[in-house]
Amino acid sequence: MISERLKKQLDFMLELDRMKNLYRQTYVLHEDRKENDAEHSWHIAVMAFLLAEYADSEIDTFRVMKMLLIHDVVEIDAGDTYCYDEEGYKTKSDREEKSAQRIFGLLPDDQKQEFYGLWREFEDGKTNEAKFAGVLDRLQPILLNYSKDGLSWREHGIYGEQVLSRTRNTAEISSGLAEVINSVVEDAVKKGWLKIQ
Amino acid sequence: MISERLKKQLDFMLELDRMKNLYRQTYVLHEDRKENDAEHSWHIAVMAFLLAEYADSEIDTFRVMKMLLIHDVVEIDAGDTYCYDEEGYKTKSDREEKSAQRIFGLLPDDQKQEFYGLWREFEDGKTNEAKFAGVLDRLQPILLNYSKDGLSWREHGIYGEQVLSRTRNTAEISSGLAEVINSVVEDAVKKGWLKIQ
Repeated sequence: MISERLKKQLDFMLELDRMKNLYRQTYVLHEDRKENDAEHSWHIAVMAFLLAEYADSEIDTFRVMKMLLIHDVVEIDAGDTYCYDEEGYKTKSDREEKSAQRIFGLLPDDQKQEFYGLWREFEDGKTNEAKFAGVLDRLQPILLNYSKDGLSWREHGIYGEQVLSRTRNTAEISSGLAEVINSVVEDAVKKGWLKIQ
Repeated sequence: MISERLKKQLDFMLELDRMKNLYRQTYVLHEDRKENDAEHSWHIAVMAFLLAEYADSEIDTFRVMKMLLIHDVVEIDAGDTYCYDEEGYKTKSDREEKSAQRIFGLLPDDQKQEFYGLWREFEDGKTNEAKFAGVLDRLQPILLNYSKDGLSWREHGIYGEQVLSRTRNTAEISSGLAEVINSVVEDAVKKGWLKIQ
């Protein structure tokens, strides 16, 4: 007999499959299509242990990784809000809270608390772990966009200043990765992939 | 200035993007297409902390998760070998070793050792962590296939006995998850999605 607890966990696991159909604005590098949330989450979770040494404060890399793996599952109901969509951002937090309640609500109570807590921690961005996770979440699409000749930036007419303003706090969290962002944005502006005010 | 070390780490991170174009035999649940290695790796990494309680021996869940996140990157050069492809399995290990040398060789030496070590540990399947990771790696496509009316099994004419034989050691590693596999295979055979000898 499979326990009620295990059934709930497997239902949750199958529900997560929807992450594979949630497309973001960033393109994958070697196909002509956008990246989905499952792929993005995998990529930044690897970056968590690849780049952990660049966190300027002490972090628990395991917790960073868990946060990154599940921080986007609320988009299953709430959809992806493009990071430069100011209108969408007004309702983002309500939509995502409702989604979190439903999706993490599929889990047994103790795990609902654990997963919801990790998601909330990421959203609040106050702990060292949440801050570093946020840096990786923003860095990954910048690197992909840059490697794809700024395709998604050019499509949306994004300004260099917008990218820098969204990543302004990086220098306090990781001076090494802040340098990467600055140098990428500077070069993308030079190449005309990001607009200049 | 971005250090040589960081440049290598970013090159590795960008090389990993190829995982998003490596398609497996399993289908995603909500689109008419196969799953890729990035999506699969993400899904099983979440399962590692969702289902860690079902490991019958003590495990370091963080290490299980790291292994699962990177165990398939060797397929970037070696390609995916379908788990019921006996011919492909004869050359799999040589092809994957070469690929591991090239891909992990992009990293700084200390991380090359670390990542290669995690991959090797997974492949050797001797530690508790590698064994449990292997169970999740095999369980996930079984659950997806079952939830998609056995589509991939039916396409390849797979026998129930083949699935059971590939997962035979699960009972020694996780009695709870072994029960899931047995009950899924039994039902899939009943429904005609898996053949019977």
